Amino acid sequence: MASKNIYLSQLTGDATYTQIVFNKVWGKVEADRAAYPEKKVFMMAFGDTSQPLPPTVVQGLVNAATRLGDRETYTGYEDVTGNPDLRHAICTNYYQKKLGIDFDPAELFVTDGAQSVSVNIQELFAPDNVVAIPNPAYPSFVEGTLLASRKLVDLPCHESDNFVPKLPQENVDIIYLCFPNNPTGSVATREQLQYFVDYAIARQAVIIFDAAYSAFITTPNIPKSIYEIEGAKKCAIEIGSFSKMANFTGLRVGWCVIPHSLMIQNTVPGELNDLWRIRHCVKFWGTANISQQGAIAALSETGQLECQEVVNYYLKNAGVLRQGLEKSGFQCFGGIDSPFVWLKATSGLSSWQFFEKMLQSTGIVGVPGCVFGNCGETYLRLAALGHREEIEGAVENADKYFK
Amino acid sequence: MASKNIYLSQLTGDATYTQIVFNKVWGKVEADRAAYPEKKVFMMAFGDTSQPLPPTVVQGLVNAATRLGDRETYTGYEDVTGNPDLRHAICTNYYQKKLGIDFDPAELFVTDGAQSVSVNIQELFAPDNVVAIPNPAYPSFVEGTLLASRKLVDLPCHESDNFVPKLPQENVDIIYLCFPNNPTGSVATREQLQYFVDYAIARQAVIIFDAAYSAFITTPNIPKSIYEIEGAKKCAIEIGSFSKMANFTGLRVGWCVIPHSLMIQNTVPGELNDLWRIRHCVKFWGTANISQQGAIAALSETGQLECQEVVNYYLKNAGVLRQGLEKSGFQCFGGIDSPFVWLKATSGLSSWQFFEKMLQSTGIVGVPGCVFGNCGETYLRLAALGHREEIEGAVENADKYFK
Repeated sequence: MASKNIYLSQLTGDATYTQIVFNKVWGKVEADRAAYPEKKVFMMAFGDTSQPLPPTVVQGLVNAATRLGDRETYTGYEDVTGNPDLRHAICTNYYQKKLGIDFDPAELFVTDGAQSVSVNIQELFAPDNVVAIPNPAYPSFVEGTLLASRKLVDLPCHESDNFVPKLPQENVDIIYLCFPNNPTGSVATREQLQYFVDYAIARQAVIIFDAAYSAFITTPNIPKSIYEIEGAKKCAIEIGSFSKMANFTGLRVGWCVIPHSLMIQNTVPGELNDLWRIRHCVKFWGTANISQQGAIAALSETGQLECQEVVNYYLKNAGVLRQGLEKSGFQCFGGIDSPFVWLKATSGLSSWQFFEKMLQSTGIVGVPGCVFGNCGETYLRLAALGHREEIEGAVENADKYFK
Repeated sequence: MASKNIYLSQLTGDATYTQIVFNKVWGKVEADRAAYPEKKVFMMAFGDTSQPLPPTVVQGLVNAATRLGDRETYTGYEDVTGNPDLRHAICTNYYQKKLGIDFDPAELFVTDGAQSVSVNIQELFAPDNVVAIPNPAYPSFVEGTLLASRKLVDLPCHESDNFVPKLPQENVDIIYLCFPNNPTGSVATREQLQYFVDYAIARQAVIIFDAAYSAFITTPNIPKSIYEIEGAKKCAIEIGSFSKMANFTGLRVGWCVIPHSLMIQNTVPGELNDLWRIRHCVKFWGTANISQQGAIAALSETGQLECQEVVNYYLKNAGVLRQGLEKSGFQCFGGIDSPFVWLKATSGLSSWQFFEKMLQSTGIVGVPGCVFGNCGETYLRLAALGHREEIEGAVENADKYFK
């Protein structure tokens, strides 16, 4: 008699389950729209991109499609760990030329985006390993930990520390870090990251570093990769993504790096990389070849310039949003090295109350901070990934209402 | 102190681990090429496609890329469970119009292909559930079971039963079936499948039905979907794929159906579908939007005709291969409702010995049957998914050598 996996059920009633929360946000927006059909709504809840793909990327995709239609140039299965040209381009054009970090392409796996790998990477570790997760955090980290039925240790993040967590107080095996941070938009300094790397090396813990928003860093001397920190290759896995750096949310291309020198208890150099290769080849079969060709185009010289222009557009959005809301009297965080503005709620209001207030008064729709963990209570996450005129309209409305 | 997942290590030394086996096959081919650089090699080991994508599909991909480059038509994240138009097209143009089976599109999930879902679907079930797998079988079924550290029950398949397994003798919870079969190329009759469905309903077991090769069925009255069998919606999950039906191996689009009426111990209608939705949304984030647009084009009226032409080309290949080898005195199975020909080894030879013999004498490269389970010993799987002239050359060589 087959029986169900009870760990999947754990998320059905849980407020951290992204899909349920997003549906709740949608539901409230729909109700508001039904009640006030004339009112303009500014959707800044979801971290979804809005600008067109750069021309070089489009051309890369069109060329790939055309080649697939020609007997002479058709290709079937891609290398499961990623198109070799793409792995080479990530190593050379991104890590080496931009950040001065050297990798063997075999240390890198092409994935279908940051989200899935940030969850699935846990399968590399023994089931009894303890996971430390900043609070607030990107919900997948928590959801993945619950689905794996692992012990979770909270790392509270506070305004007073620029939302960078302190080292765990108890023994942990796996530590999630995400900078620039989703949801707070905060970044970590070299020194702060060095503390974590030193801690991880001393305890043979592993840092899972989500660098999906690295292209948004504008503040000088802020590391874009954990591997800019001394010793990180011994203790850190990095997750990268084309979703935001190249507008690829729908195309599903990311990567992860598992350095050969990463070691944990009873492993030899390269072993974790090998184990992930097995997991990757058995439970995944690579992401779309055509999307990978788009990613190769995005990493060409022209492609990189065009993609950075799109990132800069979103960054300008975030600046307009943050400055506008500050003018209206709000306290804002993030929005400088990140497309996310982390908005402090009016005093005395919970996240959801503040969400309702903003929706009703200004039409601005964010995600209540509590969704990302209880330390996100009394904040609202706003994503500045929409069209500029929407951002400007939102700011104007906030100004009208709150001034 | 982090520690590794020992279940991943289980596959490193295991002959069933596809990547290792494929590397072994490659290694032997390379060695042969080095020794006899003039010799022509006919690569029929891998189930990879070779013909160009049909024009309607290419146009669908080009249109999708172009729309992503335009601000007015750009779209970001796709619905995680699949583009609604694609889900509708699979329900209507495939299940309803071709097979007369009705589904609610919510019963269907778009995936990144058959391979990953055939493994990941096990996460829907309790860890102690017992899995029955035909022997020989597509290696992922076994690999996924080993990675999940579940008990595996063998269902031996013999020539005398046309390689259709008998019902399990002991209690099992999950039963994998794959028809048309990879590797044997065999099909199951309505009656044979009805036995399995009746068994599964009686025991509240679940059938995971891999229908990736359904487009290759030419024999009349052979079911293309498990849902053609009475009661199957109560006990079966079906896995479909565009990989072979539309030449999509690199584009990564498939689907799975989890009917609302599928029930196991302590579940209510729709619950398994809900649980899979959670797993799908947390550990996966959907396949590439552009590939999904290609799949929508493949399911259009013209698209279907063009795709079937490609399937017919491969079927013709398989016919040429089978008939040619039979003329040379070999005993062959499959190749009629499948692109796979299951070739009986010369008497007294093991799979690997026969593999070597074929490679050395004729240049034909297959996969030794033992790779698919010990009941595949003394067979060789040949994939007829290459170019016609390769198949013809291979047959000619076999004829020269063995006549």
